[in-house]
Amino acid sequence: MTNSSDSDEILVVGSLDFDDVETPFGRADHVLGGSTIYFSAAASLFARVNVVSVVGSDMPLEAFDFLRERGVDLAGLQVGEGKTFHWAGRYDYDLNSRETLATDLNVYADFHPRLPARYESSPFVFLANIHPDLQQEVLRQARSPRLTMMDTMNLWIENERDSLLETMRLVNMVCMNEEEARQLSGSYSLVAASRYILSLGPRVVLIKKGENGCAMITPEGYFMAPAYPLEEVYDPTGAGDSFAGGFLGYLASCGELSDDNLRRAVVYGSAVASFTVERFSVDRLRELSRTEIDERYREFRRLTLFEPL
Amino acid sequence: MTNSSDSDEILVVGSLDFDDVETPFGRADHVLGGSTIYFSAAASLFARVNVVSVVGSDMPLEAFDFLRERGVDLAGLQVGEGKTFHWAGRYDYDLNSRETLATDLNVYADFHPRLPARYESSPFVFLANIHPDLQQEVLRQARSPRLTMMDTMNLWIENERDSLLETMRLVNMVCMNEEEARQLSGSYSLVAASRYILSLGPRVVLIKKGENGCAMITPEGYFMAPAYPLEEVYDPTGAGDSFAGGFLGYLASCGELSDDNLRRAVVYGSAVASFTVERFSVDRLRELSRTEIDERYREFRRLTLFEPL
Repeated sequence: MTNSSDSDEILVVGSLDFDDVETPFGRADHVLGGSTIYFSAAASLFARVNVVSVVGSDMPLEAFDFLRERGVDLAGLQVGEGKTFHWAGRYDYDLNSRETLATDLNVYADFHPRLPARYESSPFVFLANIHPDLQQEVLRQARSPRLTMMDTMNLWIENERDSLLETMRLVNMVCMNEEEARQLSGSYSLVAASRYILSLGPRVVLIKKGENGCAMITPEGYFMAPAYPLEEVYDPTGAGDSFAGGFLGYLASCGELSDDNLRRAVVYGSAVASFTVERFSVDRLRELSRTEIDERYREFRRLTLFEPL
Repeated sequence: MTNSSDSDEILVVGSLDFDDVETPFGRADHVLGGSTIYFSAAASLFARVNVVSVVGSDMPLEAFDFLRERGVDLAGLQVGEGKTFHWAGRYDYDLNSRETLATDLNVYADFHPRLPARYESSPFVFLANIHPDLQQEVLRQARSPRLTMMDTMNLWIENERDSLLETMRLVNMVCMNEEEARQLSGSYSLVAASRYILSLGPRVVLIKKGENGCAMITPEGYFMAPAYPLEEVYDPTGAGDSFAGGFLGYLASCGELSDDNLRRAVVYGSAVASFTVERFSVDRLRELSRTEIDERYREFRRLTLFEPL
């Protein structure tokens, strides 16, 4: 991580798909999904976003007009011959356990990220949950980014551990959920799990705990933020990616990667994620304003503040 | 809740027992346990505590010398003919799921709380997890307490619901863990569960979330505190009761039951509980100092603080 740049652009590389989602509150069929759409919808509220992903010829490209209007660059969006990645899943009433009903990779199966020339100097890079080999392909194309952050999933932890650890050695920040951190480290304790991840190279670890908020661990210490207390989590899909989008978007909009700004970024990420889960797909993020986010940021202060001794 | 008193005494009514505990880190046999011992050991670091409980003739009364030395009054401790309540349990590696191996009520089976005359005017009352009929027996003997708080458990929610709801109507504050709140309210959402509990009468609800901290809900809003990030939770037994002891102990030591003080009390409770789980039984609480607690309070500030916009 370096501390000087005059640009706030964020490169995101990840999936774009059609989701069929069923939650205790309803269902949504054939809606926009994938890490990239959630990340971009969130981050573009703060900074400029450059997208690298793939869709099939069945994707109406006007679906992304709302992102273009926020200055999202889609020059890196590949349109493959065939169908777009499709995912179907169902959440239990506790919204933590998710059953995958279908995963049709389609054009996503042969995806290799290719950065348009002007993306190569993006100062911020988010490697969403894709195969760790592909994450490294992105890093090889990026030129001296200020900050690189990665996500991952249980599939790569189980089946592609060596490659995953190599990606971890190359990035500044890792975000993953608590089950993944435990699986990766072989330790139930998140303190021990975080120390293990830091030992691999990253300077910052973000542990996403769903309804229990988020912990940020750096060599200097811990920061813990709660999740916003919602009456109903309508659809938790995309909460983690829109957290990452709010987090990195805010950081990209800051002059300085200080500890104060990292903490604020965690709260901004949590605030954006709390909106995401109020509706299906990116429906809430489409209409979300910075004013609403800032108001929720203030609510997080009221939620957590207590006086010194 | 009233806001004026010149005394800081807390009455606690609950169990005292011998525990056999097995955790992934070791085992402890025939050690002091029960809600009352944890609550008293914690609260006595802040305020004067009056104990009502029962033990058998097999309990060496010098076991409580460390409490007497901190000014705990044991005049309300009944010594029954027979053996002391005995509990045996085992925790899984995740420390959340607990298997009960033995519950021998012994003298505790016939326990009825009797308050010594000088306890009747205790301004603070903690009704630990006992049968809700017994909790009401205590309330009938107490004379205009400033603040009453209750705990409960799944057994009473299932089998003694009417009596439990009656106790809830009579107290100012309720603390319970998140599973209990969900079970009681029939709602997975803790926002909905808390609103249900507030609708029964209490002004303050404390939802204990174990390693995920604690939420305090009042009609004015929410306050969320994390749990202290520990490398190892050696033995989670008594975390909830020592949380309650730190919480109510701090409040009893304050002049005023303001929102600021309630928030501080949640942090003090969380700080004390984080020490409890570092060792078996009340071993860590025996040697704990107010200086150590205050230092951990400051660490909670560093854990959670972020700057305003």
